[in-house]
Amino acid sequence: MTTQDILRAAKACAPKLAAAQTDAKNQALLAMADALLECETDILAANALDLDAAKDHISPVMLDRLRLTHDRVAAMADGIREVAALPDPVGRVVSRTERPNGLVIEKTAVPMGVIAIIYESRPNVTSDAAALAVKSGSACVLRGGKEAFRSSNAITQAMQKGLEAAGLPAALVQLVQDTTRQSANELMTATGLVDLLIPRGGAGLIKACTDNAKVPCIQTGTGICHVYVDDSADLEKALAIVENAKTSRPSVCNAEEVLLVHEAVAPAFLPPLKKRLADDRAAAGKTAVELRLDEKAAAIIPGTPAGENDFDTEFLDYILAVKVVKDVNEAIAHIAAHSTGHSDAILTETPEHADLFTRMVDSAAVYVNASTRFTDGGEFGLGCEMGISTQKLHARGPMGLEELTTYKYIVRGNGQVR
Amino acid sequence: MTTQDILRAAKACAPKLAAAQTDAKNQALLAMADALLECETDILAANALDLDAAKDHISPVMLDRLRLTHDRVAAMADGIREVAALPDPVGRVVSRTERPNGLVIEKTAVPMGVIAIIYESRPNVTSDAAALAVKSGSACVLRGGKEAFRSSNAITQAMQKGLEAAGLPAALVQLVQDTTRQSANELMTATGLVDLLIPRGGAGLIKACTDNAKVPCIQTGTGICHVYVDDSADLEKALAIVENAKTSRPSVCNAEEVLLVHEAVAPAFLPPLKKRLADDRAAAGKTAVELRLDEKAAAIIPGTPAGENDFDTEFLDYILAVKVVKDVNEAIAHIAAHSTGHSDAILTETPEHADLFTRMVDSAAVYVNASTRFTDGGEFGLGCEMGISTQKLHARGPMGLEELTTYKYIVRGNGQVR
Repeated sequence: MTTQDILRAAKACAPKLAAAQTDAKNQALLAMADALLECETDILAANALDLDAAKDHISPVMLDRLRLTHDRVAAMADGIREVAALPDPVGRVVSRTERPNGLVIEKTAVPMGVIAIIYESRPNVTSDAAALAVKSGSACVLRGGKEAFRSSNAITQAMQKGLEAAGLPAALVQLVQDTTRQSANELMTATGLVDLLIPRGGAGLIKACTDNAKVPCIQTGTGICHVYVDDSADLEKALAIVENAKTSRPSVCNAEEVLLVHEAVAPAFLPPLKKRLADDRAAAGKTAVELRLDEKAAAIIPGTPAGENDFDTEFLDYILAVKVVKDVNEAIAHIAAHSTGHSDAILTETPEHADLFTRMVDSAAVYVNASTRFTDGGEFGLGCEMGISTQKLHARGPMGLEELTTYKYIVRGNGQVR
Repeated sequence: MTTQDILRAAKACAPKLAAAQTDAKNQALLAMADALLECETDILAANALDLDAAKDHISPVMLDRLRLTHDRVAAMADGIREVAALPDPVGRVVSRTERPNGLVIEKTAVPMGVIAIIYESRPNVTSDAAALAVKSGSACVLRGGKEAFRSSNAITQAMQKGLEAAGLPAALVQLVQDTTRQSANELMTATGLVDLLIPRGGAGLIKACTDNAKVPCIQTGTGICHVYVDDSADLEKALAIVENAKTSRPSVCNAEEVLLVHEAVAPAFLPPLKKRLADDRAAAGKTAVELRLDEKAAAIIPGTPAGENDFDTEFLDYILAVKVVKDVNEAIAHIAAHSTGHSDAILTETPEHADLFTRMVDSAAVYVNASTRFTDGGEFGLGCEMGISTQKLHARGPMGLEELTTYKYIVRGNGQVR
């Protein structure tokens, strides 16, 4: 099927899912999970072909992301079951007004319709995204990365068997068969067929969507996250938070990329920080964090001099740019100029500084005395997430089930005219 | 100033307004209203120049829209005062969660930042839009129609005096000085400078934004609104509702354009409808509604045969397309194929049909036994509105103050790491 055919089929069957009751959707999700397990042999065989084709031209880390195993397939099925257990976001009456003329107006959560998701090489995104879409009442059109195509296709076919076993159309979950750039562009420009486009991936993909999308689109993911250590910070806690934000998972968007330190505490804070992030880690056989220092920081500890772009780079690696600032206002100004609006933190024991920072920093998540790594659907109590929005329209931060719905006004009267 | 300069100035001063307390914003709004009255002479003089330049090449209706008078300037000032009296949408804690690890997460309403509005020739939109932006805490960049430029410029200068008198930067409300297509394109593509673009105008403007906008944008306005008269409808009420929806203000987006009638009641309903909308109105010296009939309707009453495009046209005039349908399901299917997702109504005394219709019709506002003309910020109790969104992302239907804000997560901890 062409991408256009796939989109038309999705649009045609979306109303069926939109009208489905919670029980019917949950049964479909459980059937999708069962079908994944039943089709494990097919899925692993397809994955073996993907791995074989990719092994010479992608990195070991990427190869590991691509690899499926019995346990990983089981984890995918469990992921779908967890979505089934979450509350249904559809049908909730967000607000209700009775007007003086007797009209009753209910603002009611309803499905989006057709959600398109463009993602890269992790095959488990195929089942995660499909589960969230189905639970939120929308058909989904998935466009995965080329390297994982056979795996994603086998996963999609399994989920389609589950949908059909539950009496719902297979076309509610479809994978685009064309993995060239052309199909991504078709999704971006499918006005009238795609109600929401979610690109999940690197800065290149996000920029392509910003530049080319004519359908409503949510930017996800790019995170140049800052941690600012104020003059009143508890330095022991600060060491632990900076270490966690930088090193617990450097490849993700909520990892810290830039450290700002108040000049009054820089001499006391930076030497133990260097010991903890670089020296101790190296001694323990872990990857040492490379510190890229502005002039003031370089006067206190040794490290790489920060280059022009180091305060505007999402390293996604064991690299941390460090800058000494005069006060909380300079920290706020630096963040305003360099943040991608994802997650930024202040570590302080001064309530006024915490208030100023949370009021003035315009990011999806603004932290006081905690690691930026918490910006995550699960950690926020949303259950699961489709991605982290870094734009301000519609959804900001982790996008859970509610953020995948829209609303309509249902207005009931008995003959009112205006 | 160039459009880029204007946008940069708006972005630079937006945080000042974002941080302003409710009282400060309201005082600024009242000062803006006062300044409009104080500058009435300048505004009317500028308007006279606009009228003079336009009089030979725009229609009398458009000329009337463009015209300002003492009363209309007073109404603009009153409009600003009404916005001052509305609740502040900023700072509201939308939800609050305390996580098991002790993190307290508050989802908090915050301003957008910079809102750009592209509109046409009604100069009062200049003050309405500015008032809503200021109250919602965002700087606004206004780009009005060429015909109204001098009027809008005088109105903007007056409001800037008000802002400055209240101690806020004049650059919070600015009018783009270039009225060529170039400036509209600059707003659509000002990534990083415009947080929200709202085009208010005809289908051409909306399409230009859909096609070209790289900044987050909300489609407003186009309304091909349907009223479906079910077999169980109270036909007296139905006559009144259809008349109201079609004739009370045909030029607006919530006016009815298409009437669908159940075949069982068409013979009883269409003749009195024709009498009421065409014959009685003509006899009373009003504009008769032209009925454009499908074959089945034409077999019952005389009228113009409906052409190919009549069920896909926003007439904005005294024209109504009429189609006889088999049942509520055919009505729903027709609406799915032809509606612009603005406002659609069912008139019925059968609760099951009302439920089916409200569930299946995917429009911003779905009515039972009331006129589509109620889709309006004031009628919905939102106070005022910036426009009617016909898209599903972010806001749907009337956009009031809440819909002009976004949110951020403020997360407070005491040293939590992940």
